[in-house]
Amino acid sequence: MTTDKILLDHGGGGKMSHRLISEMVAPLFKTPHLEGMNDGAVFDAGGRRIAFSTDSYTVDPIRFPGGDIGELAVNGTVNDIAMCGGEPAFLSLGLIIEEGFPLSDLEDILKSIARSAERAGVSIVTGDTKVVPNGAADKIYINTSGVGWVPDHVFLDARNARAGDLIILSGSIADHGMTVLTLREGLTFSSSLKSDTAPLNHMVKRLLSSVGGVHVLRDPTRGGLGTALNEIALQSKVGVEINEADIPVRPEAAGACELLGFDPLYVANEGKLIAFVSPDDADKALQAVRNDEFGKSAAVIGRVVSERPGKVYMKTTIGGTRIVDMLAGEQLPRIC
Amino acid sequence: MTTDKILLDHGGGGKMSHRLISEMVAPLFKTPHLEGMNDGAVFDAGGRRIAFSTDSYTVDPIRFPGGDIGELAVNGTVNDIAMCGGEPAFLSLGLIIEEGFPLSDLEDILKSIARSAERAGVSIVTGDTKVVPNGAADKIYINTSGVGWVPDHVFLDARNARAGDLIILSGSIADHGMTVLTLREGLTFSSSLKSDTAPLNHMVKRLLSSVGGVHVLRDPTRGGLGTALNEIALQSKVGVEINEADIPVRPEAAGACELLGFDPLYVANEGKLIAFVSPDDADKALQAVRNDEFGKSAAVIGRVVSERPGKVYMKTTIGGTRIVDMLAGEQLPRIC
Repeated sequence: MTTDKILLDHGGGGKMSHRLISEMVAPLFKTPHLEGMNDGAVFDAGGRRIAFSTDSYTVDPIRFPGGDIGELAVNGTVNDIAMCGGEPAFLSLGLIIEEGFPLSDLEDILKSIARSAERAGVSIVTGDTKVVPNGAADKIYINTSGVGWVPDHVFLDARNARAGDLIILSGSIADHGMTVLTLREGLTFSSSLKSDTAPLNHMVKRLLSSVGGVHVLRDPTRGGLGTALNEIALQSKVGVEINEADIPVRPEAAGACELLGFDPLYVANEGKLIAFVSPDDADKALQAVRNDEFGKSAAVIGRVVSERPGKVYMKTTIGGTRIVDMLAGEQLPRIC
Repeated sequence: MTTDKILLDHGGGGKMSHRLISEMVAPLFKTPHLEGMNDGAVFDAGGRRIAFSTDSYTVDPIRFPGGDIGELAVNGTVNDIAMCGGEPAFLSLGLIIEEGFPLSDLEDILKSIARSAERAGVSIVTGDTKVVPNGAADKIYINTSGVGWVPDHVFLDARNARAGDLIILSGSIADHGMTVLTLREGLTFSSSLKSDTAPLNHMVKRLLSSVGGVHVLRDPTRGGLGTALNEIALQSKVGVEINEADIPVRPEAAGACELLGFDPLYVANEGKLIAFVSPDDADKALQAVRNDEFGKSAAVIGRVVSERPGKVYMKTTIGGTRIVDMLAGEQLPRIC
């Protein structure tokens, strides 16, 4: 580490996060579950495999077009379990609340959590509430952890991508991040920019039950699509090639990115997935994703190659090729 | 609710916490798991029962005689799973870190977590790190969630206490709370006051494998012994009678309580349990607890009666009887 203090970058989901985890955390907790750097752990429970994941949510502001911190907290952990191939069933809810937070706001968030859990088909079964003095937190932070069942035929791992796989993206990128950022900065676009937060477990279930050749699933949250692809390229020791023209970006999000100088490839998403699928199964897989309400604009955005392992290249719309690195710094603190 | 804002009392583990959960949270997440108000949920996974629990730790200061926030976070969730009768196996780790927190302090805490997990015999299998800007948290907050297996013959529930049961307390009370409080207030006792934080899963395993008549287990953390007994009396619809003379309090803790005007019955413990046991099994149960390194000074402190359901009475050392209510307010914010 080239710094002796925690920086915002350490939580940004990019290079600094990756180094913190791989250099300081992983060596201390050397378990096979952490080595794959997946969104959660999968372990055996008497013949049945269980997926287990955790996430804390510190988003600022706590309400935004398209959702709130409660919905984000449910969908985020539901999605992490789904990305491990698990069918999420039970969630825990850990609240850290700042003294003075309005009870009516808490009730709104809890109702949002209840609605989101119902939509995803999961139950909140256990919880914990801590209150910290005024000034020791900003409004409310939420941790959700979750447990789900992994079907017998499903084996997903960030190390499983192989040359020839096609890469499916379930829809447009950068919607969540640009929504929160523009709101926070007080920018008022008279646009329909809104967060894409959504539960992806139903989409994943449909996908995994219709084709067998799905090797990796990942939801490109903090760090965005660019970082997620890099992680998989590194873990699977393969090269990744994507086509800029095939990556859906809604005009509102593209406009906000351009105006503010952000690259949509690194902006957080909260309701999108990427799937690495055998070429033979890609058509059926794309159809399965498109059949889900949150996957209507899914597209094949690239493929896996054996050359240049660990690297991601993008064919740009103007005909060039550029390397897509992991997010280097922190674009947006407290985005989720 | 008689207030429209979150107060420190809502997180104190006493009456206000109880009302917040029972009036606002439980009605929204109506699941059988939450109704028992146990330390965690127990559910079925294809013939095998799983215990699942979560806790966030916000203790101030993060280091104290006898432990630190990392050790507390591991032991706390290990103990919550054990109190459900589960044998904890896997933990998740969610960090919320304040920007500027020294990396060396983070490393110390992570090492403490690794040591504590090893001692308890659990693996940290998944995690998440968020960094919030300077001033949006106080140093570091830690969530741990955990999963454990419940043996087939074990059925513990806060609703299971029955008249005649004897109540075993595994050791002295008030050590953790008074340690943190005196340290925080800058009081320097030249004493050996230190936190009792400890993993209780090995003790519980020994206890549950040696006797069958254990009906309820609970670790009296926030809200202390007095509140834990009230919760069980309420949930089981029984009366509880305890004897002040039989409750171990170490002289250092008793002295600090007296000096500062605290009642040890309401001070948090982090390495103690109470067990409600059939009278026929109580001798063997007490012996099993005493055989554990953290249960050497265990004692029978009272019994369950059918009269005055929901109430806790204590015979005092001076020969009177007084009612022991739930903790009414917040004695100590950020005690765990």
